Order: sequence, then structure tokens, then C-alpha cells
Amino acid sequence: MSQPARELYPLVGRNKELEKSVIQIDRVKIGDSKPVIMAGPCAVESKEQLFTTAKVVAEAGGEILRGGAYKPRTSPYSFQGLGKEGLELLKEVKQETGLLVVTEVMDLRDIQLITKYADILQIGSRNMQNYPLLREVGKTKVPVLLKRGMNATIKEWLLAAEYILEAGNKKVILCERGVRGFQEYTRNILDISAVPVIRHLSHLPIIIDPSHATGHKRLVAPLAKAGIVAGADGVMVEVHPNPDQALCDGEQSLTLDGFKELAGEINFLAESFGKEVGDVLS
Amino acid sequence: MSQPARELYPLVGRNKELEKSVIQIDRVKIGDSKPVIMAGPCAVESKEQLFTTAKVVAEAGGEILRGGAYKPRTSPYSFQGLGKEGLELLKEVKQETGLLVVTEVMDLRDIQLITKYADILQIGSRNMQNYPLLREVGKTKVPVLLKRGMNATIKEWLLAAEYILEAGNKKVILCERGVRGFQEYTRNILDISAVPVIRHLSHLPIIIDPSHATGHKRLVAPLAKAGIVAGADGVMVEVHPNPDQALCDGEQSLTLDGFKELAGEINFLAESFGKEVGDVLS
Amino acid sequence: MSQPARELYPLVGRNKELEKSVIQIDRVKIGDSKPVIMAGPCAVESKEQLFTTAKVVAEAGGEILRGGAYKPRTSPYSFQGLGKEGLELLKEVKQETGLLVVTEVMDLRDIQLITKYADILQIGSRNMQNYPLLREVGKTKVPVLLKRGMNATIKEWLLAAEYILEAGNKKVILCERGVRGFQEYTRNILDISAVPVIRHLSHLPIIIDPSHATGHKRLVAPLAKAGIVAGADGVMVEVHPNPDQALCDGEQSLTLDGFKELAGEINFLAESFGKEVGDVLS
Amino acid sequence: MSQPARELYPLVGRNKELEKSVIQIDRVKIGDSKPVIMAGPCAVESKEQLFTTAKVVAEAGGEILRGGAYKPRTSPYSFQGLGKEGLELLKEVKQETGLLVVTEVMDLRDIQLITKYADILQIGSRNMQNYPLLREVGKTKVPVLLKRGMNATIKEWLLAAEYILEAGNKKVILCERGVRGFQEYTRNILDISAVPVIRHLSHLPIIIDPSHATGHKRLVAPLAKAGIVAGADGVMVEVHPNPDQALCDGEQSLTLDGFKELAGEINFLAESFGKEVGDVLS
Repeated sequence: MSQPARELYPLVGRNKELEKSVIQIDRVKIGDSKPVIMAGPCAVESKEQLFTTAKVVAEAGGEILRGGAYKPRTSPYSFQGLGKEGLELLKEVKQETGLLVVTEVMDLRDIQLITKYADILQIGSRNMQNYPLLREVGKTKVPVLLKRGMNATIKEWLLAAEYILEAGNKKVILCERGVRGFQEYTRNILDISAVPVIRHLSHLPIIIDPSHATGHKRLVAPLAKAGIVAGADGVMVEVHPNPDQALCDGEQSLTLDGFKELAGEINFLAESFGKEVGDVLS
Repeated sequence: MSQPARELYPLVGRNKELEKSVIQIDRVKIGDSKPVIMAGPCAVESKEQLFTTAKVVAEAGGEILRGGAYKPRTSPYSFQGLGKEGLELLKEVKQETGLLVVTEVMDLRDIQLITKYADILQIGSRNMQNYPLLREVGKTKVPVLLKRGMNATIKEWLLAAEYILEAGNKKVILCERGVRGFQEYTRNILDISAVPVIRHLSHLPIIIDPSHATGHKRLVAPLAKAGIVAGADGVMVEVHPNPDQALCDGEQSLTLDGFKELAGEINFLAESFGKEVGDVLS
Repeated sequence: MSQPARELYPLVGRNKELEKSVIQIDRVKIGDSKPVIMAGPCAVESKEQLFTTAKVVAEAGGEILRGGAYKPRTSPYSFQGLGKEGLELLKEVKQETGLLVVTEVMDLRDIQLITKYADILQIGSRNMQNYPLLREVGKTKVPVLLKRGMNATIKEWLLAAEYILEAGNKKVILCERGVRGFQEYTRNILDISAVPVIRHLSHLPIIIDPSHATGHKRLVAPLAKAGIVAGADGVMVEVHPNPDQALCDGEQSLTLDGFKELAGEINFLAESFGKEVGDVLS
Repeated sequence: MSQPARELYPLVGRNKELEKSVIQIDRVKIGDSKPVIMAGPCAVESKEQLFTTAKVVAEAGGEILRGGAYKPRTSPYSFQGLGKEGLELLKEVKQETGLLVVTEVMDLRDIQLITKYADILQIGSRNMQNYPLLREVGKTKVPVLLKRGMNATIKEWLLAAEYILEAGNKKVILCERGVRGFQEYTRNILDISAVPVIRHLSHLPIIIDPSHATGHKRLVAPLAKAGIVAGADGVMVEVHPNPDQALCDGEQSLTLDGFKELAGEINFLAESFGKEVGDVLS
């Protein structure tokens, strides 16, 4: 197996001397020793839904609130998100809870607006190779969370990140969210091996999203913990106060209690086991 | 195997009474009994390259010239296309040869410009689920060629087309270009079964692109002919006067002579065998 | 894309001077200019079922009767075939119709028995890398039909054939039967590009099985014809006098009338278009 | 996503009241609270190689020695294993170290012989659907390690196990070893989500094999630990005293020191974190 070499990635590639990149936003450090927890509902639906969730996220030690205001949906007839109203709600809840906010940008014409509300711009799987969008977020100074395409190779993913860095923005966080597989008992296959592979190839932080990968709440916690132990810098999980009534992806959302338990386990894991993957970095 | 039903696709779905859609542009009919040939270089490189190719395409009975002015490339360091200069060349060559022009649009801010030059707007595989882009081409009156994503299911593909029709543009041509497979002897796997499946589910025309699917010139002709016999409304193939010096995808480009031979065979097939796939439509 | 070279396959690889292998059984030539039609039920169920089908196969110009006596089933609780009784029925019907018989061998302890009844031993997809079985059929003088594994690369498939030739049996026919894909509208994805790829790499004949690949009777004819035009040496299709009551794979079985129509079309295609794929062989 | 239900698997399926199966061999319990470590070379090559490795495995807390005497190789020209001589070596080393032995059986005619030497019979990926072989090992009383096929769904895998139980042998251990993916930076994709899915569906123990899944020694430790945290009952890893000179799969073999470190980490993980995946079992 001949592998594409690090040299392919002049900006995102890790050279031997280089430290890992740590992306700091206010007091939160992504890529540092402590894993970061990003959590929240798939889509922002209402003040109450968002606030209830955010409070639990904050109390349990989560640092970043996720929530979609603009939703890329397979069908044009599905709920498309609250748009600007959703952004307003995210901002309100941010002010009340102190959480940072990550939200998706699908349309490059929305970037300017969204950067007024969000601390991190998410590029979703479907847009991983939307190069004009990558270039435009690359011109901002806002950190970007770049999800892996549902069928992207690691080379394609790192080169997508390269577009953002090449445009001037060095603050990119990679997010593994599963590749397409059998769609029998899981929605996708979470490729946890991507974590140590990326750690070896790149200086960028990498987190995992076991909610979209698996599509089932009961699989989220085991895979979240597995990802952390494999070296991930954090997790992004979906949480909803009432998953059965969610407008989007309720099946894969943790309940508030389920989330609290998971957050506790991640913190315990991080403390007792560390995030040492020295062999990967050699 | 329970299959998503036609009802999922209110606008692109075929109901039993509905005739197939025929998309007419000037004198060319796509979706009618005669298969359409779209051919040309991967990327527009120069007047000479484009003109030499186009003359052969026209002489051999091709009706539509393909050529990329804006190229979505995996790496930001690869040749990205000539941009507006490429569009100008396409227009010149169109005027000299009478061929129609299809070219890719990646950035919704370019739509207005490109529609001044192109007869068909191509949405590439990587943008199949770029919904803002789909909506914007849906607001034009220009026919759209929608390539299947490298890993898209047929349901996702038809729902992407649904976005365009829902926005107001009924002139959509689907293009099967291969799904990701083993990448050993072929770049992708051309899913020819998509042709009769789409014919059964939808009234939209469907063509195939064996050049991107296979990645090798010697596989293009057998698969182009196979697609036509399976019921495709046309083919899109890459042709270059000098494949070894192409700036993009030379390995999969037919030579001018190779193209002439293929065009002759397609015309012979179409005449002697027809495009009857009656069983598919029942 | 660096490709495994022909040299990997000392016995099945095609060298430039070598003619294609033609496998002759009685009056039937496989790999010669005329495509061969193998047809019959998935499983042998009764004398009446088999005889009714075989008569139609013979009348329509089919040369080889397929029918499973030993069936590899995903579940141990599914119908496993009639075993020796099925072999007896195949032989009876062979004598009455003059058709040759191909049937699957799953267990190497059955080879001696089955060779008394069958003209061609089929190795199914699940056993493509069952090396002891390959070696044992390699020690017989009976032609072997080697189906591609559901997820086998072409290299793995040719090396599996290499096991048979290396054991002494040169009479191997390859059969493309689809690779695992989305399982949405088709059971598998028929990789028609395997036909010209194999023609380029190997001297062995190759046929296609669109019944297992697609899983739906309405897709069988378009893909069978597509495979022939792409250069296949024949097709294997499932036919049943009463598909709705088949004990196995009824959904993908052609009716007797459907089969007659397809056989006529294949013969017409073969005559009017030939099987010329000269470019592949260069 | 409608999922195949537990009822499909009358013998391997878990009903709500049922305890997990624990498979005890001498003093070793597989499926109990402590994860089991199986380790050793890909292929048995010599007494010295095997003994050196086994001593380290035993000292570091491994309980089961792996080593192939009969090797299923993609090419008939690759090293095929030492056969009976390899079995003899396994037995000698077993007596000297007290380790149990797991080794692969490919040919049902070898079962009787191999059961004289091995404590666990391994069925490899390529033979997961070799039903005669499954039935024959099902007639023995020896525990069976059933690897998931490279492209098998979980349903197919559990039904393969069902064949063994249905034949009378209830001692089956499942082993996830990666599904075919991009073959770019990893050989396969280790589907860690299979661990909690199997825990939910079945009472059988499940272990993971990160060596074959990843194909690279530097990825083995992170994924082994991840699998344990996700609930696996053990790991199987390749270890070689001199990976660069291994006759088979050296690239993915841990060195003796690498193995010792991993074994220590697994034991630490197991102790400090337990193997509690209560949410999975609800």
C-alpha cells in the first residue's frame, strides 16, 4: 500500500518538529490535552428547547453549543432550519450560559451574517468539496469545523482543509463523522482509525461526531469514549430535551440525562487515562 | 428490499401516464429517441485545443461541446481552469461550429455570467448536494446537467433534482458518472443499472459519463455503448487532441480518432437497435 | 492510479500474442464470437419446474441450463436445495433437452458426485476465496464458472482463478455478478467495466449475471444487453415458470416470456453488432 | 432505517433476560469482565520466532497465542503456512508457556487434525460464508472464533454464527476485523460500532482485530484501546520479534516492546474504567 505522503499537504501537513496546533477561542482550547465537548440539538427549534439543552451542556462540563440554523436536508420538503431567527436564539443562549457556539454555514452569502453570531463555522459533509465556500470561510478569521465527506478519503479531506488554510485561515478543526457503509444497523461507519491517521499526518485538531455516524442514541456513548481513547481532541454529540419530538434526527439524540452521564465518563477517561498517543506521533 | 417509492419525488417522479420529458435546446432534443453525444476536453486550455476538438466532435455527429472553465480540483494547487477567458473561448468555438455548450458552475455567484455563454449548466458530483447552488440554477431557465455524487444513492440524487424543479426549472438532465469502488483498475464503478432504475422512477432524461467513471480511455467506448443499450439518452465523453499533454484527466480522454470511431458506433447502435427499453417502463 | 500488472497472473494473464481462450464443451463454445446464454431457475425445485423452464431455454437458443441443487443461503433456516435429488433432475432434463448443465459446488466432498451430473462446476461468490475448494476443482477436468466475490477486487478474482489453473485445470470462465453497493434500488451494482478490464488482462472468457446483480427482473434485460455490448462472452440469467412462487430469488427471475424476448434481443445484438472490442485488446 | 430484528437469530440472538455468554477454556474466560488478549505472529515461521513471541505475550498478561499454520493467501504463489509442522510448534510452545492456542482452519478435512493442537478454531474472513466449514466446526466441541467477512453485514455475520450453533456448538466468539473501505491510509476500516451493536443483538462475546483492520503497526494500539472502551471482550493483535523479516503481514505487526506497552494499557483501562456499557444492553 503506497500512501500519499505528508508533502502533499504543505499547510495542513505535520512536519516532525511542529507542535500540534491548539485553537483557542476565549478560554476554550481545542487540540490541547483536555478533550472538548460540543453538544446540542441537531436543529435550533425554539428558545426553550435550546436553552434547556444548553444549560445541561454547560453544567455537565460541555464548552461549545451546537445547533443548526441553516440545515442541509436531503429533501427540499424537510424542515430547513429557522435561519436568522435560529442565529438570534443561539446568541441569546450563548449570553445566558457562557457556552461558545458552532453552527453550520451552507451558503457563502450567509458567512458575513453567521460570523456575527457564531464562534465556529461548521462546514457539513455535503459541502466538504464546495471549494468556493471553503475559500470564503478561509478569508475570515473565524475557526472552521470541517466535517469529513460521507465518502471522502483522508487525502481529499486534508486537501479540502488545505483550501481553507491556503486562503488565509489557519484555524481549522477536522471532524470525523462516519463514512457510508451498510446502512443496516448504523447510519454510517465511524472511521475511528482516521483519528490516529490524522494525528500522524497533520497538526490540526480532530474531533469525532458519533451521533451522525451511528444514527442511534444507544451507540453514541461507546463510540464517543472510543474516539477519545484513540486520541481525538473532542466529541460533538446531539442532545435534545425530548428526542421523540425533535424536528430533525431525534433517533440519534441523547437525552439530557444520557448526555450528563457521557460527559462524566469522558472527563473521567481524560483524567485517568490521559490522551497519550505517543506512538502515533512518532 | 423495501424501496423508496415514486411518491417521494413529486416533481421528478414519473407517474404512469406521463410521457418522458424531452429537453429541447435549439434543434437538439435530449430524451428523445436519438441518443445525444456531448464531448470535449476536461478543461478548456486554449483556442487551438478547443477548436480542433470541437471540429471533430461536430463532424462526427456530436451535438454538444463540453469543456470546463471553472474546475473543481481536489487540491488547491492543481490547475483551476481559465475562468472567464475559458467561457469566451467556448462561445467563439460555439459560433464557429454550431455546437451547443455545456460547462460547469461551481459558485453561485458565477451563474449569471456563465448563462451568457453556456446552453447547459453542469452541476458536478462534488456539488450534487450543494443546495443553495441547486436552488439558484433552479431559478434560471437554462437546462441543468446534474451529475450524481460519487457516493450518492439514487434517492439522494433524485431529491437533489427535486430541489431544482421545486425552484422553478424543469429542464434537468441526470448524468451517471460512477460511484466510488475499489480504485484498482478503474477510477470509479459506472453504475449502469442506474439507467433503467431512473427510467422507471423519473421522467427526466439520463445520460452517462464513462470517462470520469472509468478513468481510462480504453474503457470509455465499451461502457458508452453499454449505457446506450441499457437505455441512456446520451453520453458525455472526454476528447483531447493530445491526451498526453492535457492539463487535466488526460488518461481518460479519447483521441480524436478514438472519438470518431465511438460516435460512429453509437449512431449505428442507435439506428439498428433502437433505444427500446419497454420492460423498464412498465 | 498504479495498477497491478499482468505479470501478477502468470497463468490467467493475457500476453500480447496469446489468443483468447475458447472453452468448448460438446458443441458449445464459450469465449468464441457468439455469446452464450445460460439460464434456468435459482434452485431446482421439481421436475416440472425444471423441465418447463429448460424447454423454453432450449427453444429460445439458450445452450446451458443453470439450477442449484446445493444452495448457499445466508440463513441456515432457508431452503438449502434438493441436493442429490436436484442433480438427478438436472441430468434427466439435460437428456431430454440437450442443454448442458451448470450447477454450484459448495463443499469439496461433493465434487466427485457433482461432476457426474454437471458439465460446468459453479463456484459461487461466497466461495471465491475458498482456496481448498478452488484447488480441488482445479484437479478435475471439468470447466469451472468462477463468480466474482461480492466485494472482491479484480486482482483478488484473477488470483482466485490462478489457484484453479495452477492446480491443473485451464478451463475457467469468469462471471461478474455485481459488487456490494447501496442496496437501495438494486441488490448489488453490476460492474460492467469489469468486462473490458478482464478482456485486457486475461485470456479467460467472462460472462455476466445481471439477475443476482440487480435483484429485479425488470433490470435484467437492459443490463444483459449492456454486458454483451461491452464485450461479455455470455450471460447467466434466472428464469422461472412462476416467479411469484419460487423458493429462492423469485423477485429477480424472468418469466418464460421475458426470457424469450431477451434471448431474441441478445441474438440480434450479437449478429448486427458483433462483439468487437478491438480497442480493449490493444 | 428499519433494522433486522433479534428474532432473526434464534440461537445467537440475545433475549432480554439472557446473561451474556462466557466461554471458558481452562482458566481463561472470554466474555467475562476482564478483556482477553490474543497475540502472536501472523504465520508460524519457526520455533524460535514463535517461542520468543509467546514468552513476551505470556509475560505481558496475554492469555492466548495466535499463529497461522494454514494461511489463506490471495495469491497461490505466496507463503501458505507450515501446515502440520506449524501445529506441532504451536503445541510445543503452548506446553512451555501455558498459553492457549488459536489457529485458523480453512479446509474442513483438517478439522480433526487441528483440534488436536488448538484450543480455539479460527474461521477467517474469507470463509465466513463457507457453510460446510461452519457446519463441521459446529459439530465439534471446540470454541470457534468467527471473523467478520471483509464486506459482511452484521446480519450476515450473525447468521453465519447461527450455522455453527445450529450444528450443535454454542461456543462462538465473534471477531470484528475491519470492512473494506478506501485502502488509502488503512487496509480496511475497523467498524468499532459493531461492538455495541453486537452487544445489543447477541449474547456471544465479541473481540476486535486492529492489526488486520488497519494494516499498520502504529494504528494498532489506539484502535485496540478504543475497541475495549467501546465494550469489546478482548483484542487479537499481531506481534513479531522482527516485523521487518516477517513472512506475512510484517507491516502491521507490533514489536515485542510495542506489544508489552499495549498490554499494560489495556489492563490499566480495564481496571480503571471497567467494561461497563450498560446503556448498550438496555
